[in-house]
Amino acid sequence: MTSWIGLVIAAGVLGLVYGVVQTLSLLKKPQGNARMQEIAAAIQEGAGAYLKRQYTTIAIVGVVIFIAAFLVLGTYAAVGFLIGAVLSGAAGFAGMLISVRANVRTAEAASHSLQQGLNLAFGAGAVTGLFVASGALLGVAGYYFILTDVLGLEATSRPVIDALVALGFGASLISIFARLGGGIFTKGADVGGDMVGKVEAGIPEDDPRNPATIADNVGDNVGDCAGMAADLFETYAVTTVATMVLGAIFFAGTALVGPMMLLPLVICGACIITSIIGTFFVKLGKDNHIMNALYKGLIVTGVLSIGALAAVIELVIGFDTPITYSGAPSGFTGLTLFWCGLIGLAVTAGFIVVTEYYTGTGKRPVVSIAQASVTGHGTNVIQGLAVSMEATAIPALIIVGGIIGCYLLAGLYGIAIATTTMLALAGMIVALDAFGPVTDNAGGIAEMAGLDKAVRHTTDALDAVGNTTKAVTKGYAIGSAGLGALVLFAAYTSDLKYFAANAAPGSFFEGLGELTFSLSSPWVVVGLLIGGLLPYLFGGMGMTAVGKAAQAVVEEVRRQFREDSGIMAGTSKPNYGRAVDMLTKAAIREMVVPSLLPVLSPLVLFGIVYAIGGAVPAFEALGAMLLGVIVTGLFVAISMTSGGGAWDNAKKSFEDGFVDKDGVRHLKGSEAHKASVTGDTVGDPYKDTAGPAVNPMIKITNIVALLLLAVLAHVA
Amino acid sequence: MTSWIGLVIAAGVLGLVYGVVQTLSLLKKPQGNARMQEIAAAIQEGAGAYLKRQYTTIAIVGVVIFIAAFLVLGTYAAVGFLIGAVLSGAAGFAGMLISVRANVRTAEAASHSLQQGLNLAFGAGAVTGLFVASGALLGVAGYYFILTDVLGLEATSRPVIDALVALGFGASLISIFARLGGGIFTKGADVGGDMVGKVEAGIPEDDPRNPATIADNVGDNVGDCAGMAADLFETYAVTTVATMVLGAIFFAGTALVGPMMLLPLVICGACIITSIIGTFFVKLGKDNHIMNALYKGLIVTGVLSIGALAAVIELVIGFDTPITYSGAPSGFTGLTLFWCGLIGLAVTAGFIVVTEYYTGTGKRPVVSIAQASVTGHGTNVIQGLAVSMEATAIPALIIVGGIIGCYLLAGLYGIAIATTTMLALAGMIVALDAFGPVTDNAGGIAEMAGLDKAVRHTTDALDAVGNTTKAVTKGYAIGSAGLGALVLFAAYTSDLKYFAANAAPGSFFEGLGELTFSLSSPWVVVGLLIGGLLPYLFGGMGMTAVGKAAQAVVEEVRRQFREDSGIMAGTSKPNYGRAVDMLTKAAIREMVVPSLLPVLSPLVLFGIVYAIGGAVPAFEALGAMLLGVIVTGLFVAISMTSGGGAWDNAKKSFEDGFVDKDGVRHLKGSEAHKASVTGDTVGDPYKDTAGPAVNPMIKITNIVALLLLAVLAHVA
Repeated sequence: MTSWIGLVIAAGVLGLVYGVVQTLSLLKKPQGNARMQEIAAAIQEGAGAYLKRQYTTIAIVGVVIFIAAFLVLGTYAAVGFLIGAVLSGAAGFAGMLISVRANVRTAEAASHSLQQGLNLAFGAGAVTGLFVASGALLGVAGYYFILTDVLGLEATSRPVIDALVALGFGASLISIFARLGGGIFTKGADVGGDMVGKVEAGIPEDDPRNPATIADNVGDNVGDCAGMAADLFETYAVTTVATMVLGAIFFAGTALVGPMMLLPLVICGACIITSIIGTFFVKLGKDNHIMNALYKGLIVTGVLSIGALAAVIELVIGFDTPITYSGAPSGFTGLTLFWCGLIGLAVTAGFIVVTEYYTGTGKRPVVSIAQASVTGHGTNVIQGLAVSMEATAIPALIIVGGIIGCYLLAGLYGIAIATTTMLALAGMIVALDAFGPVTDNAGGIAEMAGLDKAVRHTTDALDAVGNTTKAVTKGYAIGSAGLGALVLFAAYTSDLKYFAANAAPGSFFEGLGELTFSLSSPWVVVGLLIGGLLPYLFGGMGMTAVGKAAQAVVEEVRRQFREDSGIMAGTSKPNYGRAVDMLTKAAIREMVVPSLLPVLSPLVLFGIVYAIGGAVPAFEALGAMLLGVIVTGLFVAISMTSGGGAWDNAKKSFEDGFVDKDGVRHLKGSEAHKASVTGDTVGDPYKDTAGPAVNPMIKITNIVALLLLAVLAHVA
Repeated sequence: MTSWIGLVIAAGVLGLVYGVVQTLSLLKKPQGNARMQEIAAAIQEGAGAYLKRQYTTIAIVGVVIFIAAFLVLGTYAAVGFLIGAVLSGAAGFAGMLISVRANVRTAEAASHSLQQGLNLAFGAGAVTGLFVASGALLGVAGYYFILTDVLGLEATSRPVIDALVALGFGASLISIFARLGGGIFTKGADVGGDMVGKVEAGIPEDDPRNPATIADNVGDNVGDCAGMAADLFETYAVTTVATMVLGAIFFAGTALVGPMMLLPLVICGACIITSIIGTFFVKLGKDNHIMNALYKGLIVTGVLSIGALAAVIELVIGFDTPITYSGAPSGFTGLTLFWCGLIGLAVTAGFIVVTEYYTGTGKRPVVSIAQASVTGHGTNVIQGLAVSMEATAIPALIIVGGIIGCYLLAGLYGIAIATTTMLALAGMIVALDAFGPVTDNAGGIAEMAGLDKAVRHTTDALDAVGNTTKAVTKGYAIGSAGLGALVLFAAYTSDLKYFAANAAPGSFFEGLGELTFSLSSPWVVVGLLIGGLLPYLFGGMGMTAVGKAAQAVVEEVRRQFREDSGIMAGTSKPNYGRAVDMLTKAAIREMVVPSLLPVLSPLVLFGIVYAIGGAVPAFEALGAMLLGVIVTGLFVAISMTSGGGAWDNAKKSFEDGFVDKDGVRHLKGSEAHKASVTGDTVGDPYKDTAGPAVNPMIKITNIVALLLLAVLAHVA
């Protein structure tokens, strides 16, 4: 088995090497003229300052938890927490560092050709993607290797499992802060800047006269890039860990336990290689269709991954190896696991197709929002909300289909393998996403540096595709959470069973027996309702935070315009730094309370129900909470991310003139276009702040519950 | 026991008599000048035409189901279905008939004094309230009396239970169509009329030059009055029936079974009397504070109901009578049931306070939306959505508290009694709500008839309070659904247990054993997810329907303005009838598919899962669906109704000038006010179409599941 883990680590290292080589080649590309470099430097400075401040704040929370983990759960868990937290933060930071260097080079490259612009931006995205996947895999596999092979701990022992779960917790904790803080910053800048710039002052987006324009570009890097990278890092890490934990529990004491714990790691390792190969196939065809160029790379990765999956399962488990565990259906072999992996890939493909339908320009949902804009702001928003709610239906059915298919084939472990396979493609999926903020920035730099309009046109074309790929990534992340919900819940119940079986007299777990988590129990219903509440409360807080940050930006920009009339005249430079500083403070301040909500809620619910009803009700309510948070979280997240993407592209429909159902053409600047801008503004925090942050929120609730069990087992 | 049911029926009849006497006195009031009567006649005609068409369409569905019920479940169930359907429809129709006659009289009365206007409008609301409560009680109690005392059937026998459930189904079926159809009509008219009238043409609301203005006033009557009445009728009927069914199951074979089945009916009967008494206490104090006047009546009803509850429980059960059933805690007596009833009243009070906070003018949430309007349309909508999501938190905690309290005191039956007591106040709560559309119409008539501005000011003051009371009623309805979720689920599981115990060989239920509905079962998770999806899909459909209807109105109004320039000049009359006709067709067409969604979904889910996994998975998934639909439905409904109310009152904040945080005063017509109108427009379908229709949707899903069990028992 040691040789397998060596190969996994080698694959992770290969991913890092790919990233470093790509980065070096990227840094050699020309950076354009002095004005462009000056603007890029301002963005770099702002993004660096923001992230330093954000991670300093998170570090305070992190140190407290590290010490607590060390005191309660011991060294291994504390170190695991540290590894997860540091690597998750590093993935975000690295993504930002590449992104703020690629933006100006992409602007320069786009002034030559679309292909060159795409190459550069996608190259930067691929670096982030591979850093995220490789970093997460190296963290989990490396620490597992150290614990089991170097330190000689039993793979299925509690210290190992607790240490891996703590690693997941570290990653989750960072990612919720990064997602939310970055999301508040970027959308505060975007919404605020647009409202006072586009709507009030009537100047275009990224106009250098707008004092919020540097902040807006900083936001793309700290929100859409760093925040997203931290989020996908934790999704990847938590899913892999959960699958390993389930493998340890289900196959404990059998010959298959080692291979089953390794399998998720090997699948992920193989898919890092297929992702790297896929990146070389992203090339524009003769039709210059950008989405198709991206799809080429994705399809190559997907098809190769099918082969890799088959090879890995045959080599690690064996297609004909019969597999049994408590609850597994009969006739379950290695081949069955391959089918489950294919279901995971099919779910990914299904999510991509559906998300593209709901957010793509020219499709029925986006056209219906554009059409509704013709009758005003109100109907635009109503139709957008309608689309956002409707957009949850097919994804939910896909997840349900995936759950049923995997369960019938291979039981819960089948669902875990499907989820892992789904996430194994993260390197490629993140690459598709992370190129978006680079092109967005490139457009901003082109505009501010007064480059030729054709450059802006090229970057806009890249950016429009970015809206859909961003929605796809978010759907993918939340979809994996939905598919993985049963896996995380199974980890919780299995842990509970383990602790109950090994309970010390007088401890929480003594005489607990097997809990049924029956829907007939009021404690289960209470848990479902409280869990269901979390995404709503969290979403409401996130939206409020963006609203506050945006209002602060509006006031700052109005103040600068008022106090220095030279800004609008173009004779004096606005104070970009002040807007960045102010937003930094606002975002950091607003991110703390909502981020702590999912961390503290499981503890509070457990404590209160324990005080009222005792241990069994408390464990039942807590378990049900984990599913409640998925049931509403899935719908809140998908509706927000898809709805926001649809609003954005409905607005973009007007840029080349939208022809309504009566044949009237509405151009940019028309009343209908203004109504579509309102929808886009509403969609901003929907799709880039509250919606995507629901995914780490769900994960962290689950991980905290698992850790709580470990803590209770240690203290009592 | 017969004497008790006689008293219950007498209380119901008293409610009807109160309604008739009030109506006769109301009809004697002066109807104002000829112009006012002409307008009122047009509204009456439109409302009558719409409702006739709506009920004709529903009747087609109803007749099919009646025949199916007769063939499969027999005469008693078919007749029960008919009673529920006809009475629910009648309650809506009666409410509308009073409302369209009270509006013009209220306008006339308001021209004399606020107190007279309030008296008349509240009097009309009280008629609707008492008709709803008495009608529902007489339907359930009367049919129960006929089945058991006249026909001599055993109270706990399946024919009686099936017949009562079928009655609930009839009521639910009508109410979902009425809520949704009426909601689409009223908000299509409101949104469409406002957008083209207020925003484009710049004419005030209810301006007679707007061709949609009669349709708007018709909408108040068919949506806010008739739709709401049908909805509360079914909530009342279904809750009472579910409590009776639980009583029959829990206490079968004991001496307490008769009293326990009667108890919900007697509580409801007693509270009809306390509601009637409360209506006499609705009087303005010296401060002319309308909400306080309404609260006086409500508080009197609430306090008297505490006494009535105590008396009823002492007389029907006895405070000291020990009560036992499977799952009941020890030490449970009649007195315990009294405490549960008090919890029901406390939940009602809690909902009212929280809803008033979230939707009341001058409170933090509404002020925050008004403040956000200062920075534009986008921030207004963002803040409104934030408030709508946040507004779900405390209500969810109240429900959770209610569930825990009742369960610890008296088990599931305690929760059922709390829910029944909560709904027993429906007469008074509906009265508070139904006066809203009357004053809204009165304002419209005053405007169109060119009455003095002071009259409009009086009706506006009444109407502003109506926004809060409307939100309160909707919160109350959905809150009772949340509290009652476990009751309906318990009815499902108990029925299932009964059928399994009495299964014929080869039937669906053979060898079913006891199902656990464990969250560890993937079928349960699938059911939760599919159930969770329904409110989202349904809400999306409802919003789309309003958007479509509104766009149609906008186009019709624009066409009339374009083709006859005399309309805006005031020299020629717009064609009001065409707008009403067009909306009628649109609303009826759009209501059918979403209304059938909750009727068919349980059947489809059951069928598919049965085909894939067999009977146990199918029953588990169906049961979990019933809770899934509550978990998301609760949040969708509360966020929509509270958010919509908050947006509406944020807009109203500008009517007397809103002073923002920098001390600037924004008046009607300012940019900030226009932004607030956008939020109000978005809130319209939120609070009056999609949100409130979620409540009957939840109920109908539950009732269909119960009926499905009965049908399966009959056919197999």
